[in-house]
Amino acid sequence: MAETTRQTRTAHQLRMLSDALDSGRLGPVRRLVNTLSPAEIGNLLESLPPTRRNVVWGLVDTEDDGEVLLHVGDDVRESLIAEMDPEEIVAALEDLDIDDLVELMDDLPEAVTEEVLRSMDRENRERLEQALAYPEDTAGRLMNPDVVTVRADATVDVVLRYLRLRGELPEHTDRLYVANRRRQYLGQVALSALLTREPSTPVNTLLDEDQPAIAVHTSANDVANAFSDHDWISAPVVDGNNVLLGRITIDDVVDIIREQAEHRALGAAGLDEDEDLFASPLRAMRRRALWLGINLTLAFVVASIIGLFESTLEQVVALAVLMPIVASMGGNAGLQAMTLTVRGLALGQLGGGNVRTLLVKEITVGLLNGVLWALVVAVVAGLWFHSSMLALAIASAMVINLACAAAAGVSIPVVMRRLNIDPAIAGSIVVTLVTDALGFFAFLGLGTVLLLK
Amino acid sequence: MAETTRQTRTAHQLRMLSDALDSGRLGPVRRLVNTLSPAEIGNLLESLPPTRRNVVWGLVDTEDDGEVLLHVGDDVRESLIAEMDPEEIVAALEDLDIDDLVELMDDLPEAVTEEVLRSMDRENRERLEQALAYPEDTAGRLMNPDVVTVRADATVDVVLRYLRLRGELPEHTDRLYVANRRRQYLGQVALSALLTREPSTPVNTLLDEDQPAIAVHTSANDVANAFSDHDWISAPVVDGNNVLLGRITIDDVVDIIREQAEHRALGAAGLDEDEDLFASPLRAMRRRALWLGINLTLAFVVASIIGLFESTLEQVVALAVLMPIVASMGGNAGLQAMTLTVRGLALGQLGGGNVRTLLVKEITVGLLNGVLWALVVAVVAGLWFHSSMLALAIASAMVINLACAAAAGVSIPVVMRRLNIDPAIAGSIVVTLVTDALGFFAFLGLGTVLLLK
Repeated sequence: MAETTRQTRTAHQLRMLSDALDSGRLGPVRRLVNTLSPAEIGNLLESLPPTRRNVVWGLVDTEDDGEVLLHVGDDVRESLIAEMDPEEIVAALEDLDIDDLVELMDDLPEAVTEEVLRSMDRENRERLEQALAYPEDTAGRLMNPDVVTVRADATVDVVLRYLRLRGELPEHTDRLYVANRRRQYLGQVALSALLTREPSTPVNTLLDEDQPAIAVHTSANDVANAFSDHDWISAPVVDGNNVLLGRITIDDVVDIIREQAEHRALGAAGLDEDEDLFASPLRAMRRRALWLGINLTLAFVVASIIGLFESTLEQVVALAVLMPIVASMGGNAGLQAMTLTVRGLALGQLGGGNVRTLLVKEITVGLLNGVLWALVVAVVAGLWFHSSMLALAIASAMVINLACAAAAGVSIPVVMRRLNIDPAIAGSIVVTLVTDALGFFAFLGLGTVLLLK
Repeated sequence: MAETTRQTRTAHQLRMLSDALDSGRLGPVRRLVNTLSPAEIGNLLESLPPTRRNVVWGLVDTEDDGEVLLHVGDDVRESLIAEMDPEEIVAALEDLDIDDLVELMDDLPEAVTEEVLRSMDRENRERLEQALAYPEDTAGRLMNPDVVTVRADATVDVVLRYLRLRGELPEHTDRLYVANRRRQYLGQVALSALLTREPSTPVNTLLDEDQPAIAVHTSANDVANAFSDHDWISAPVVDGNNVLLGRITIDDVVDIIREQAEHRALGAAGLDEDEDLFASPLRAMRRRALWLGINLTLAFVVASIIGLFESTLEQVVALAVLMPIVASMGGNAGLQAMTLTVRGLALGQLGGGNVRTLLVKEITVGLLNGVLWALVVAVVAGLWFHSSMLALAIASAMVINLACAAAAGVSIPVVMRRLNIDPAIAGSIVVTLVTDALGFFAFLGLGTVLLLK
């Protein structure tokens, strides 16, 4: 509901665009598009089916092209780059900061990469090559080498004169970094301190030494957590010798935070967070086929468990009618425990002794809900098929399955994490396998024992 | 994997804490806890079972209490507040900004709310009451009234002298707002512009009029989208007459962005994003019972569809063995289409004519994957039960179910959104109902037609 305004606005834009594109009048489209910010254009392009997307992409001002490419998912980015000439790409990347260029370089055709490097001056080329040498998803890839440093022995007045000489500051500069002659990081001075103190104040009395610098090999996720733990706007990045290499700013961190959570929301359905809403069906099919194939294999495992009870099912067909209930309730309870555990793992809240505490809590919750719904299901099933033994079988199977589902929901992601398997992606399919298999086995097994002589 | 460092660190902290708490030596615990930032303490408290959580909470420095309360989920916050005396609560809230206080007020016992209001000076009390008058999840609740304004006709020099007189600037101030005599918003001046320009420069030549002010009734989600569309650090908030009311800063926006995505990740499993990892089992059970109850009701609907085919199942027990395969594949394919659609809706990318395009694309993907896996399943099922008619039945049911699952996955969340039902929460359970019901009906129906004479 709270998202309605934006949705309405986009829907309105999309309709206007649609009409204009249908009528072939591209002038109004161009005008509409170029009133938007690069991020909004990116969002708009992601909302358009491929043919229209390409038409609109051709109308975007060349100077915005680079920024727009930064604001779309990998799949859409690839499709946009495929529409551009090498010269257009080089022109689009011209005005980007090093950290943004680094993000795009991996998605460029190799020929273009070389062209881009050739078109840069030596200093920037070296900076770019250096940044690309750091592993993906580390602070080294996120940082921008454009940093303003001052000396600790200067006064506010000297710094102000230096800044007036220098002119512009890099975007999102909220603090200047204080470094020694060897560029080693000593601390920071907030712009607000420079503005509110007397000109004669020495910089070293304004020094904030509390904010530690980020090591260049820190993972992107740890960088994001540090930013949100400390409410930073920017943070300095240093190498092993504490030498200032660059600066990470909140705008890039917001993207990481969004992606972290997206990854969990989409991963649970076997989707990639970079999936294009309007990918070609063949491409989308190939992306999802593997997941469905794994699911099919597991479904056959479950079917073979049911197959063990063929003769029971022949004699008591009510078991076939009711068995999906047990599996479905187990699946839901298991996914609830799993979702909570995956979040706990992602936020670094699980580890040490508290996994066991969580396991005990979740199994207790499973037992409580198991008993509650077992009673309900026993009454309904007993009345439906006029059999108290059937009621007993389904009720017991329900309690067993909900308790085991809770145990599986906690332990499977924890074990996966230890094995370096991403529980956000693999977790749901394995937990469902366990709850299905166990649900059918428990119910049909109990049915065999209780209902057949 | 990328989250390992933080996890390792937390696990280490948790183990140290555990050992110290076991031995009853609270000194080391207190020292460890008070080296952490409020957000880190919040994260730590969320990682602890209730008894230990209360012990550690008692050791947190009183001056950090308020900030820590801001950095935990609603459930944990409630449990922490329950441990405090009214005077402790009042003391903890003393140093908080108005926007932070607003966030906490709803969770306080009524007696304490009054106490807090009484303890404030008149100006702050009025500001707080004014902020509380805005609806939840709007810009009015997020803003902080503490704003620095300057006049357009001043020079940089005059502004600098004013700032030195004023002393401190509010946290995360990256721009000063320019307003007229009636406090109407005219534009902004970046701190970096004040630092890099000559003292004689008039403020109105530095004025950035591009960034529009946020209307006070804008939804929190739209605020978050605007911040990430424009890479803002802060933004001014105005009323209907363009009068400056306050300022929203990126730190609060990051929290909203995180919550938006959390909501989708947890909502799909019927969980609330504020759920406490270590809630008491009874409380957790009650929270989840409703979801499981709805699921049970729907499972009975599905069972009653299977019940229609009792006599078929009695004659061909293989159908009972294989039927969960069709349902499970449909469920997975449906959830994939749904997850993508829910994200598209949340990001404002769906609306106008493109829903139909997405529907066509997803049904095509469903058909392609349906045909692919139908062939596989037909071969395996045919060989298993030596029946080509059974193979034909399951293959056809698979294609039908995957195509319909895709259609349901797109259309159900879109319709829910139009009806103002949150698809992130209700979507998965309804899509699964459709794919289960349809999977069983198609397979058992086709089985009846093809296998029984």
